[in-house]
Amino acid sequence: MSARRLLILAEGYSGDPHYGKTMRGVLRYRREDVVAILDSQRAGEMEDGIPIVADVDSSLCFGPTRALVGVATQGGRFPPAWRELLKACIRHGLGIENGLHEFVADDPELAELARRFAVELLDLRRPPAGLDVPSGANLELPARIVLTVGSDCAIGKMTVSLELDREARARGIASCFVPTGQTGIAIAGWGIAVDSVVSDFIAGAAERLVVEGHERGGELLLVEGQGAVSHPAYSGVTLGLLHGSAPHVLVLCHRAGATEVDGYPGHPLVPLPELVELHERISLTRRRAVVACVALNTRGLSDVAARTAIADTEEETGLPAGDPVRFGAGPLLDAVLARL
Amino acid sequence: MSARRLLILAEGYSGDPHYGKTMRGVLRYRREDVVAILDSQRAGEMEDGIPIVADVDSSLCFGPTRALVGVATQGGRFPPAWRELLKACIRHGLGIENGLHEFVADDPELAELARRFAVELLDLRRPPAGLDVPSGANLELPARIVLTVGSDCAIGKMTVSLELDREARARGIASCFVPTGQTGIAIAGWGIAVDSVVSDFIAGAAERLVVEGHERGGELLLVEGQGAVSHPAYSGVTLGLLHGSAPHVLVLCHRAGATEVDGYPGHPLVPLPELVELHERISLTRRRAVVACVALNTRGLSDVAARTAIADTEEETGLPAGDPVRFGAGPLLDAVLARL
Repeated sequence: MSARRLLILAEGYSGDPHYGKTMRGVLRYRREDVVAILDSQRAGEMEDGIPIVADVDSSLCFGPTRALVGVATQGGRFPPAWRELLKACIRHGLGIENGLHEFVADDPELAELARRFAVELLDLRRPPAGLDVPSGANLELPARIVLTVGSDCAIGKMTVSLELDREARARGIASCFVPTGQTGIAIAGWGIAVDSVVSDFIAGAAERLVVEGHERGGELLLVEGQGAVSHPAYSGVTLGLLHGSAPHVLVLCHRAGATEVDGYPGHPLVPLPELVELHERISLTRRRAVVACVALNTRGLSDVAARTAIADTEEETGLPAGDPVRFGAGPLLDAVLARL
Repeated sequence: MSARRLLILAEGYSGDPHYGKTMRGVLRYRREDVVAILDSQRAGEMEDGIPIVADVDSSLCFGPTRALVGVATQGGRFPPAWRELLKACIRHGLGIENGLHEFVADDPELAELARRFAVELLDLRRPPAGLDVPSGANLELPARIVLTVGSDCAIGKMTVSLELDREARARGIASCFVPTGQTGIAIAGWGIAVDSVVSDFIAGAAERLVVEGHERGGELLLVEGQGAVSHPAYSGVTLGLLHGSAPHVLVLCHRAGATEVDGYPGHPLVPLPELVELHERISLTRRRAVVACVALNTRGLSDVAARTAIADTEEETGLPAGDPVRFGAGPLLDAVLARL
């Protein structure tokens, strides 16, 4: 990945914390790979020290080698205007890394253009061949498995897993982040997007991921969670991942103050104490998982308000809580290790 | 479907209640379409009044027009010996209806042969184009929705939905069976196999199915359940279906006496009272579902033992229970209607 110099495509979305989550994840954990961000509505600004450009032409002076689709649209399809943008990237010799459900390599026009300009089209969500149901290998691994779960989507489950992994490695633990979605894959360079496999094979894909995480040297596996068991659209992925990855311990993620499913008005969130119990009760009967702590996303709150929200959550759930991004992942890792 | 004269392919599986479930479902609910069953190990026997033959040649005197793959193998792939069998069917001019995950129409050799002999290859599990996440239409339908759920796979959820539908129609209710798996599709002639869609779209596919069931005139929708929320391999499909079909009422299916997940030694079943509560708590927060009754599969028990098992289940769960196949679906439909 040494020649990976990324232009992040975030046209119209670079300021959106929800749909721009691939961009934000890569900016935070693979910043060294990013040379520019494309969003014509914010051209000339900087994002986290990275220049924002109006079009592909204006990005070329930064020497990008690949364009990364940095948005996660609902349903995973391309906004129509993006086709021209992708064609411009290919014509300028940039490979494409795409995390949407719509595969660029399967588009005849884009594939033909990519052949002509000799660039690679990489679909991060393309499932590997030969998936199947779990074999039971997930329950036989000599590893300790930690999965992030949550009250909603896009509240930071991947970030929490990455922060716990970083903290564990800093302590000398043979830890491995296990990517289960397009952003995690763009960051770590391996993984399976479990939301894109044939639905009968979600658990089988999750099993394959923990097996691979262990083969990569992980004795502590920090599995990136997806969706929420109570989410009206994505719960199937969540539960298949929960059963297939066979975690010993869960970390429950929540956005401080949220009470309704984001984007689904009228769908209340399940209260945290009930969510703790629900996850433990719905975990594998052969390997009961315990929720070790609550990771609270306090973005937008003052430090004082964040401390209060964390204390309130500890009182509400009876579990240790913390915001690993704001205050460090140490306390949450302590709580996880105490339950392993 | 008038010219649909089925040869059911069940080589090596026709006596197996689990893997032969497609065969059994079609025999029970579309018996008028079936002319013969192929299983060389039982050639010469009869199954439910239908002749069992050794090979495709011996089936021809019964005038089949199509061969139906009547087995549901684990992971949904073809046993290797089946390729020759499928080729023999095609060479004899039989179309193929296939419910496995492995698609016959995508196999270059079989597809070429089918072109040559001008027969149709129909993959019942092929997802329709344009699936997406739910739009919310599931919550706006002027219909009452009933979903079967269960303690395990292959214990009769489809059968219970079909029996409830038959009983409701006999009472003059505008009821519609909503097929969500390959056998239900083979029986009803429409539907989506939700276990075969991209996993992000399970709930969206389920929503599309209840919308179509209503368009087909269903005011009472009896949705075929899949898997089990506590199943180590298939739970993701179950939960996505539960959230996407947005049922008002659930019917909990269980095989009398079962205590362990079939085929998964060491994975205990969740006890029924806990399963009732778990399903209600994990249903959509915007539309809480209630479990109205327990459908008990008492196959293999004497009538007396079956009555005892039903009474025990009623006492254990506090809910009406019954075996709709053995004793009729009336009492269970009464229980369902009482909660709608």
